[in-house]
Amino acid sequence: MEQAAGEVRERVQASFDRQGLMAHLGARISHIGPGEVHIELPSRPEVTQQHGYFHAGATSSIADSAGGYAAFTLFPERTSVLTVEFKINLLAPAEGDRLRAIGSVIKPGRTLTICRLEVFALTGDQRTLIATGQQTLIQIESRPER
Amino acid sequence: MEQAAGEVRERVQASFDRQGLMAHLGARISHIGPGEVHIELPSRPEVTQQHGYFHAGATSSIADSAGGYAAFTLFPERTSVLTVEFKINLLAPAEGDRLRAIGSVIKPGRTLTICRLEVFALTGDQRTLIATGQQTLIQIESRPER
Amino acid sequence: MEQAAGEVRERVQASFDRQGLMAHLGARISHIGPGEVHIELPSRPEVTQQHGYFHAGATSSIADSAGGYAAFTLFPERTSVLTVEFKINLLAPAEGDRLRAIGSVIKPGRTLTICRLEVFALTGDQRTLIATGQQTLIQIESRPER
Amino acid sequence: MEQAAGEVRERVQASFDRQGLMAHLGARISHIGPGEVHIELPSRPEVTQQHGYFHAGATSSIADSAGGYAAFTLFPERTSVLTVEFKINLLAPAEGDRLRAIGSVIKPGRTLTICRLEVFALTGDQRTLIATGQQTLIQIESRPER
Repeated sequence: MEQAAGEVRERVQASFDRQGLMAHLGARISHIGPGEVHIELPSRPEVTQQHGYFHAGATSSIADSAGGYAAFTLFPERTSVLTVEFKINLLAPAEGDRLRAIGSVIKPGRTLTICRLEVFALTGDQRTLIATGQQTLIQIESRPER
Repeated sequence: MEQAAGEVRERVQASFDRQGLMAHLGARISHIGPGEVHIELPSRPEVTQQHGYFHAGATSSIADSAGGYAAFTLFPERTSVLTVEFKINLLAPAEGDRLRAIGSVIKPGRTLTICRLEVFALTGDQRTLIATGQQTLIQIESRPER
Repeated sequence: MEQAAGEVRERVQASFDRQGLMAHLGARISHIGPGEVHIELPSRPEVTQQHGYFHAGATSSIADSAGGYAAFTLFPERTSVLTVEFKINLLAPAEGDRLRAIGSVIKPGRTLTICRLEVFALTGDQRTLIATGQQTLIQIESRPER
Repeated sequence: MEQAAGEVRERVQASFDRQGLMAHLGARISHIGPGEVHIELPSRPEVTQQHGYFHAGATSSIADSAGGYAAFTLFPERTSVLTVEFKINLLAPAEGDRLRAIGSVIKPGRTLTICRLEVFALTGDQRTLIATGQQTLIQIESRPER
């Protein structure tokens, strides 16, 4: 898989590291390509819904971050990204060793960028698509990240 | 506000208590009415995005659970609820002392139930709508909750 | 119901009259308020799906226009409105003498405006909510309308 | 491109022919494959919005039908298809000689089927993605089509 430029990868990783939620869930970035970012989330009791599967909120959280950073890889310096909206279909019970969310840019733009969101459940060699979505993001003048 | 029947409130609360994610985020149910459930989430570094606001994933997680349980209050015993899909618009930076997600049933149904999702940021007396969404849920034969 | 200013109503009506699709479907504006527009569509064989109900596409078309013009009532002169995206749930078979789509602004903004979309089926005195949706619109510098 | 079985193609075409809206817009089916249906709509003043582009409602109408029939190709006999909901992003001004909507099944199911919706604007050899969406459909016992 193609890697994004080093400077871009650093910018994405640094921003991700400031997302308290991602660390708290136990998520980490596993790939940063131009217009595509992967985020993985291991199975833990802390991310479940009432039947023991991954909670739709956990699935959505990593999908939202993956899409946001996929867009961010294409943004110029000194800009920031915010989610305008997203829609996600939960296709199958989210069970497995871990989830992998893939955010990929469908349509970049100076103001708005549209991403596809896909989440797979991974167990050993097996990969099941468990959620698919679509997201709209906006590029804004950078505000200081804290 | 109208309360749901005691048996319903117990059923919702018991299911909520099995959602590892809600406890891990620090969320709690603050109201269970017939067709309407509120969930609150205090501000903590563990639920933030890169600018220090509530992460869209945290906002979506409590919105998804609030809508799911709003539907569940209208379901018969020995059934369970799963999210089919939801769509959410993030309207404003989610900052405040806490978030309150309100899930309310727009259209109940034997198979599918449609909910409105609203999330407010609360600081002292001030209440700001920071997200609004729509959700489709499906009623299924109960599977044992673990 | 509150009416929008005369100048605004004229601007909305003039733009609506340039929408070839609305005339072709037989739709007309029935109300223009500040941040809220109603569009009505009588039942005709030309707007049906395979069971004789209103087609989801017809329902969506008037919902999209109602939301777009609801946003447009709040825009300054020499700007134009485009739909970024919308999501709609079809809640019940769309049958009746006519449909009424109500677009109303949830959150106005300089760049993006978010609207609620509701569509009712009307037969005599009876009114049934048959679709509900959410829409994101963008304000752009006016391009000449043709 | 793979064709669906003859019996399936006939069933889809017959249902499409009962959709008054599709004929009224001037749309026709150009491909029926297993889990994938294409619908084309030529440019005409009757399907425009206020700037002379294809109206988002026209775009959505053929996208909705394409997705619905894509699902329908996988349904057993004596069943029918209804749209539960869809979400669509309008990516670029919809201008060209004609539109081609492609509905394709992402996840088939006994009750619910999820489709991807894509709409391209075609001018000569040029093809531009102008809309992308996601749709949830439900399989129901057949009701007599009229």
